[in-house]
Amino acid sequence: MILRPSEEGFFFNWNEHMKTYGVGILGFGTVGAGVIETLQLNGDLIAARTGLRIEVRRVADLDLDRDRGVKVDPSIFTRDAMAVIDDPAVDIVVELIGGVKTAREVILKALRAGKPVVTANKALLAEHGDELYAVADESSADLYYEASVCGGIPVIRSLREGLIANHIESMYGIMNGTCNYILTRMEQENLPFEKVLADAQTRGYAEAEPSLDIDGIDTAHKAAILASLAYGFPVPMEAVHVEGIRGLDPLDLRYAKELGYRIKLLAQIRHHADGIEVRVCPTLVPLGHMLASVSGTFNALMVRGDVVGDTLYYGRGAGRLPTASAVVSDLADVARNLASSSNLRVPALVRHGEYGKMKKLEDLESCCYLRMSLKDHPCVLAQVAQVLGENGISIASVIQNKPGEGCDYAPVIVVTHRAPEKKFRQALRIIDALDVVGARTIRMAIEDFE
Amino acid sequence: MILRPSEEGFFFNWNEHMKTYGVGILGFGTVGAGVIETLQLNGDLIAARTGLRIEVRRVADLDLDRDRGVKVDPSIFTRDAMAVIDDPAVDIVVELIGGVKTAREVILKALRAGKPVVTANKALLAEHGDELYAVADESSADLYYEASVCGGIPVIRSLREGLIANHIESMYGIMNGTCNYILTRMEQENLPFEKVLADAQTRGYAEAEPSLDIDGIDTAHKAAILASLAYGFPVPMEAVHVEGIRGLDPLDLRYAKELGYRIKLLAQIRHHADGIEVRVCPTLVPLGHMLASVSGTFNALMVRGDVVGDTLYYGRGAGRLPTASAVVSDLADVARNLASSSNLRVPALVRHGEYGKMKKLEDLESCCYLRMSLKDHPCVLAQVAQVLGENGISIASVIQNKPGEGCDYAPVIVVTHRAPEKKFRQALRIIDALDVVGARTIRMAIEDFE
Repeated sequence: MILRPSEEGFFFNWNEHMKTYGVGILGFGTVGAGVIETLQLNGDLIAARTGLRIEVRRVADLDLDRDRGVKVDPSIFTRDAMAVIDDPAVDIVVELIGGVKTAREVILKALRAGKPVVTANKALLAEHGDELYAVADESSADLYYEASVCGGIPVIRSLREGLIANHIESMYGIMNGTCNYILTRMEQENLPFEKVLADAQTRGYAEAEPSLDIDGIDTAHKAAILASLAYGFPVPMEAVHVEGIRGLDPLDLRYAKELGYRIKLLAQIRHHADGIEVRVCPTLVPLGHMLASVSGTFNALMVRGDVVGDTLYYGRGAGRLPTASAVVSDLADVARNLASSSNLRVPALVRHGEYGKMKKLEDLESCCYLRMSLKDHPCVLAQVAQVLGENGISIASVIQNKPGEGCDYAPVIVVTHRAPEKKFRQALRIIDALDVVGARTIRMAIEDFE
Repeated sequence: MILRPSEEGFFFNWNEHMKTYGVGILGFGTVGAGVIETLQLNGDLIAARTGLRIEVRRVADLDLDRDRGVKVDPSIFTRDAMAVIDDPAVDIVVELIGGVKTAREVILKALRAGKPVVTANKALLAEHGDELYAVADESSADLYYEASVCGGIPVIRSLREGLIANHIESMYGIMNGTCNYILTRMEQENLPFEKVLADAQTRGYAEAEPSLDIDGIDTAHKAAILASLAYGFPVPMEAVHVEGIRGLDPLDLRYAKELGYRIKLLAQIRHHADGIEVRVCPTLVPLGHMLASVSGTFNALMVRGDVVGDTLYYGRGAGRLPTASAVVSDLADVARNLASSSNLRVPALVRHGEYGKMKKLEDLESCCYLRMSLKDHPCVLAQVAQVLGENGISIASVIQNKPGEGCDYAPVIVVTHRAPEKKFRQALRIIDALDVVGARTIRMAIEDFE
């Protein structure tokens, strides 16, 4: 017999016999409150879709007084995270404490107790993933972390399940909403970096201490996690080259546009025959490319697989509810695993050991955008071009400008062909020491996605 | 002990004891050959990632002589699809026959034999999903169909697992590469529909009999599948409103651009308090929106969830390898289910019966683009505006053009505010009968995604 939606008795009977899994939430901050709100809002729908019920049974935080805008039975609150893990009513532990020290301890304790863990903690995974993934394996306990990269966008799931048939050739991501918001407003309103940062802080789009975001570290954490998944080994943070957007000049956004590009803080992950490249830096992206259309606090990840070709995933990379959407999707997966005793169905990280070598930063190749400050004299460009040429860097195009009134130096934009990092460093060390050069040359990568 | 990539013995020992699942492929066409090629290319990588091996053990097709560009042991070929299903060496059946009759029979037979099925057959699922989903449930056999919607882009997985925490408010999809290719070239090269279609046929981007694509039916099949998943009941094709792009005038692409829009064949799925809306029609999309940047044969789907907000998925919606990428991802999922006896972990379609009503076409509301052919006389626009007004349709903007030389009628573009379909039909029936109107009014929906 085919059951139809109109026969509603079917739905309610099923509900009665539904297995229920208890969740303990460690860290009752923005995202923790979002997870509770999401389960309150859509718990019935999730139960209908999975045939399983997810119930928040304990919530731990040091501050239990602040109003989080969500109703919770006060009897489930505690200040003791460890007690939550030990509670037999808690089947799944959600770590939303953040930071590296306590978060690591509670996750290790939960995994060792055989309890599956869901976390959104990118810093912890990027820095201690090696240890956590191994303990999860040894303990046969699930460790899920969809919310750690690109918030609500299901990129982890897409990468390791949806694209499982693919060697990942490259990934390019706009993965920090704060930076993308700042760059979008700087470009659209022609404002200096500091002014937009201050405004972003007022609006709550940037932290009071913004360095994790604007210096590219948060993006690098996410890039390391993605690269680890794609290539089957924990990519060490030391091997990730990171540059942020601090002090970026709106001038460069304007010149980039003239050249047909937009500047994005781009995570770049590439597979080369001699190693994996992972870097994060302000990068010129062609205006016509999908990634150039990602504006404001939105995130996007482009994944290039050898079978599927280019795919792209876009959405909100942070925020109370988008992040909660990812955490709850992991809870549903873990609950399904518990219900069918298929823990480690998708291990936290499969070491497939196919790759493992990291490419050295100095060997990474890119096309570059150079903004030089040169004395306004006919021979100067020849002098600079010669240094570039001697270092194996060939020029694709040049825009020469007139100096501002009362100024001896003019901005000159040079777009180069592909050359290795060490050559750029050598050449610019020489160029910036020339007496015809008025200020340190600004350099950014150009990515044409070819 | 933490196993590291360098300790390669770990990897190979594991490999020896690996469980292997046999696959029978029914239909050795483009995608069938792509699946075999993908498993040959990346089978070891998939085995390393899943701990399971997927092995093609039988291939059935009526034509076994044509060269598909992929090497297969001829002893596994057969012309008898039913024999493949019966073969005890076949654990998973892949249906790539296409069409509705034989495909339905083989899938039903496989499911009833308790064998999981992977299919890419959107027409079959849209037309007979109700029966197939029920038989899969009764037989406790998996039925996976990632490749049926948007080819290589993991949209099914994202929708039913990644976004499981969300009520789906709406979905908007560009899901037919043939139509999108034709519209892109018509706009970029200002060419008439028939010319681009003929060229697309020559290049293999359109079928000799193109109606399934250009009349919107293929997109409608995919929309019905997505709506079924989101709302928990098999959406009947009769309830999907379909218009294609046949005979679209390049003039409208130009006027749309003047207004800040691009015309796309857009699937629109929306949840209303009084029912589900599913329609496919040429639609004006704002130039700044991500969906407007989807050009050529690419596909994209935007999903708006109540928790996560807007997310978007982009990539190749068709083709030998992109489609194979999706089929193989399903094979990996099914193999994981077999290995952990967790079949029906994610059922083919969960009837959660929360929704079920379809909204009637005549009640659907939209803003519209109207291109009228009006006599060049001062009073004519007032006459038309009055008819619109009497039918409750208010005008947002008007572009009046001069008639071409020697022509009595001028094209007038009217952009309306939101109004129900039945009002537009009533109003245009009256307007098109006026003697000041030279030709049938062209009408298209405008979607601002607000």
